Amino acid sequence: MMDTKKSGRRYSRRKFIQRGAGGVAGAIVAGSAFGADSAVNAAPASWKVAGRGFSNYGQPRDARNSPIRWISADGSTPGNGVSWTPLHQLEGMITPNGLHFERHHNGVPEVDPATWKLTVFGQVAKPLVFDLNALHRYPMTSRIAFIECGGNSNSMWHPQPAQAPAGYQHGLVSCSEWTGVPLSMLLREAGLKPAAKWLVADGLDATGVSVSIPLAKIMDDTLVALYQNGEPVRPENGFPARLLVPGWEGIVNVKWLNSMQLSERPLMSRFDTVSYTDLQKDGSAKRFTFEMGVKSLITSPSPGQALAEPGFYELSGLAWTGNGSVARVEVSADGGKTWVEARLQEPVLDKALTRFRAPCPWHWNGARAILKSRAYDAFGQVQPEREILLQEKGGNQYYHFNGIISWSVDTDGFVRHVYA
Amino acid sequence: MMDTKKSGRRYSRRKFIQRGAGGVAGAIVAGSAFGADSAVNAAPASWKVAGRGFSNYGQPRDARNSPIRWISADGSTPGNGVSWTPLHQLEGMITPNGLHFERHHNGVPEVDPATWKLTVFGQVAKPLVFDLNALHRYPMTSRIAFIECGGNSNSMWHPQPAQAPAGYQHGLVSCSEWTGVPLSMLLREAGLKPAAKWLVADGLDATGVSVSIPLAKIMDDTLVALYQNGEPVRPENGFPARLLVPGWEGIVNVKWLNSMQLSERPLMSRFDTVSYTDLQKDGSAKRFTFEMGVKSLITSPSPGQALAEPGFYELSGLAWTGNGSVARVEVSADGGKTWVEARLQEPVLDKALTRFRAPCPWHWNGARAILKSRAYDAFGQVQPEREILLQEKGGNQYYHFNGIISWSVDTDGFVRHVYA
Repeated sequence: MMDTKKSGRRYSRRKFIQRGAGGVAGAIVAGSAFGADSAVNAAPASWKVAGRGFSNYGQPRDARNSPIRWISADGSTPGNGVSWTPLHQLEGMITPNGLHFERHHNGVPEVDPATWKLTVFGQVAKPLVFDLNALHRYPMTSRIAFIECGGNSNSMWHPQPAQAPAGYQHGLVSCSEWTGVPLSMLLREAGLKPAAKWLVADGLDATGVSVSIPLAKIMDDTLVALYQNGEPVRPENGFPARLLVPGWEGIVNVKWLNSMQLSERPLMSRFDTVSYTDLQKDGSAKRFTFEMGVKSLITSPSPGQALAEPGFYELSGLAWTGNGSVARVEVSADGGKTWVEARLQEPVLDKALTRFRAPCPWHWNGARAILKSRAYDAFGQVQPEREILLQEKGGNQYYHFNGIISWSVDTDGFVRHVYA
Repeated sequence: MMDTKKSGRRYSRRKFIQRGAGGVAGAIVAGSAFGADSAVNAAPASWKVAGRGFSNYGQPRDARNSPIRWISADGSTPGNGVSWTPLHQLEGMITPNGLHFERHHNGVPEVDPATWKLTVFGQVAKPLVFDLNALHRYPMTSRIAFIECGGNSNSMWHPQPAQAPAGYQHGLVSCSEWTGVPLSMLLREAGLKPAAKWLVADGLDATGVSVSIPLAKIMDDTLVALYQNGEPVRPENGFPARLLVPGWEGIVNVKWLNSMQLSERPLMSRFDTVSYTDLQKDGSAKRFTFEMGVKSLITSPSPGQALAEPGFYELSGLAWTGNGSVARVEVSADGGKTWVEARLQEPVLDKALTRFRAPCPWHWNGARAILKSRAYDAFGQVQPEREILLQEKGGNQYYHFNGIISWSVDTDGFVRHVYA
């Protein structure tokens, strides 16, 4: 699958190091004309005046030039829409809290933590109510996990490739360290009746999001999350408490958690049926696609960016799967004719975003090139080519796109989205 | 060391689960009087009105009630002081960017990324200058790592135990996912001369922080960090670039990086000598204490908090070491007479904060109790009792405190700092 001889010309650490100083990256300090001594001796202006003072809560440098979430909102329903994580401007695997994607159906409710209560009822021996102080008494668990909206990347089902920065097409996925109480612990306290097979959770938002989740997943690894990257969960991410259902589509990670009913069967709510449900070729709907597929994309370079000149560039991106951890990622710079295995940034964690990087800098020679990445999970599943996915799923699908994503680097250096 | 029989009475998962519903945590829904059905049927107010819309960059819920950095600034020098990470209000291991501790000597300089340059000179074959675009062309590495100020916890050297929340005594340590260019790569491009043994780095702040770092550490794992928890490094953390010298005292992790001189010997700057240097019993100064010692503290419960009533509580805290990863943490609820091994939250990462939790909830019976934690590294080093550290180091020390930290839970439920 990997043609080392050919790919050796395209990815070379040795050549990169050799040529690095020759204009690829570092500019040579030319002796005394622009010498290091003169550069150092010219005292920077910032050495001459005291800087800004301390702050209780820090902010990015510049609201105009720092990465932001791009908002796609539906004017007909207040607070219905999304805001996208700018994956193309970020690095590593953690998403800072201010840039975690949002998907709201009717806006962000204001919840008073002093009066908030979480109810557990239905097929349990003892219905329970927890307030926030009570939840804080329970043992907690932390894990770094992604959440991806079931509708992420849905523009990929369109016949023409949409032109937008990578994060604004694929950034309904973010990754945080979540901390909370294992839901299994609360349910054991309530006492599950044998008839309990599903958990129906609802949220405090004005849409009243209500979803049905099989009990096995709840008992396996679902958290009532109270903290996100160390601090209390942000309002737009479900303050004071949300479900974290690792690896499963965003909608079941219910925000602004209100009640949980143990039930013999799913509720078949709007969110169980009409939304987040895959329409098959024959027009029938496939029930419940919870687990997000194995997927990856190159974030750098990516659409909207331009390569300044031929030379060496790092290819870097993100991979994830709802089924265990990412086993392998390959990248191609020739439209999939040859592939090289990318380096995975440690730690590679179960159901977390994984940063990958081409093994060595890629050399762009100025000709048109097609960049692709494809991820594998540990169970032999591989991210499929878009064409294959379309053949399998047909033209009615709107959710759960996990096909290979392709960028062209054109002769002008600009990076564009292509189907290739 | 661990008395299972005795500790068994204090930490019990079985008893916790049994008693959980009996008032320890979840409140029983008492039939129809305050029943689940009535609780659910009473539609929450937030279901009746659309919530807030989307935001380009999210913020914590409420500036007055959310965790903040507490500022300790020195009025005599503008921008000299610290702001503390509120460890006592956080969970997990990641510090959100807005709450990363600050230590500035003369404020936060405003650096223009368009004109910023990083110079490498001295004992190199080719002096180099890098601009920000050039640095972005290099292969990057990400790692989750703590940074701790050499002066963290210095109130522990005082004869009387200071009374302040845990983060406002010990919160000059934070943990982020840092991404940047391995400095070894830039130095190889410049070509190290055999005489190069030290790297002298300086910053753009008005103090002109300048420190000397042995070349071996630089070549081992030091990064020129450009990203912090996914987004560009914040101004107060060194925008546009800082050094990350994993596990070594904060001052060498130079912010607002300006130049790096390869040198035969250390500069013996003010920051190499007067500051961050340990004064010994005999009045002599110990040169260069770079590596931060193995250390831990319980963050919950901790001073300023109060236990509402006798019952079960989770003991949770943070441990770290500048030497590899944390191997083990023990907790005691009887002033160190008996200890139990805490659970370490995976992933346990090299030179990162590690969250620990008592193996089972601790049962507070209402009597006075002394809580302690002690951490071990993989090399047999253990966090010492404060008294031992004082005997070893004498009364002249101000920096690098890593002794055991003790809290008393008094009969009124209040948690206080004690030397015990």
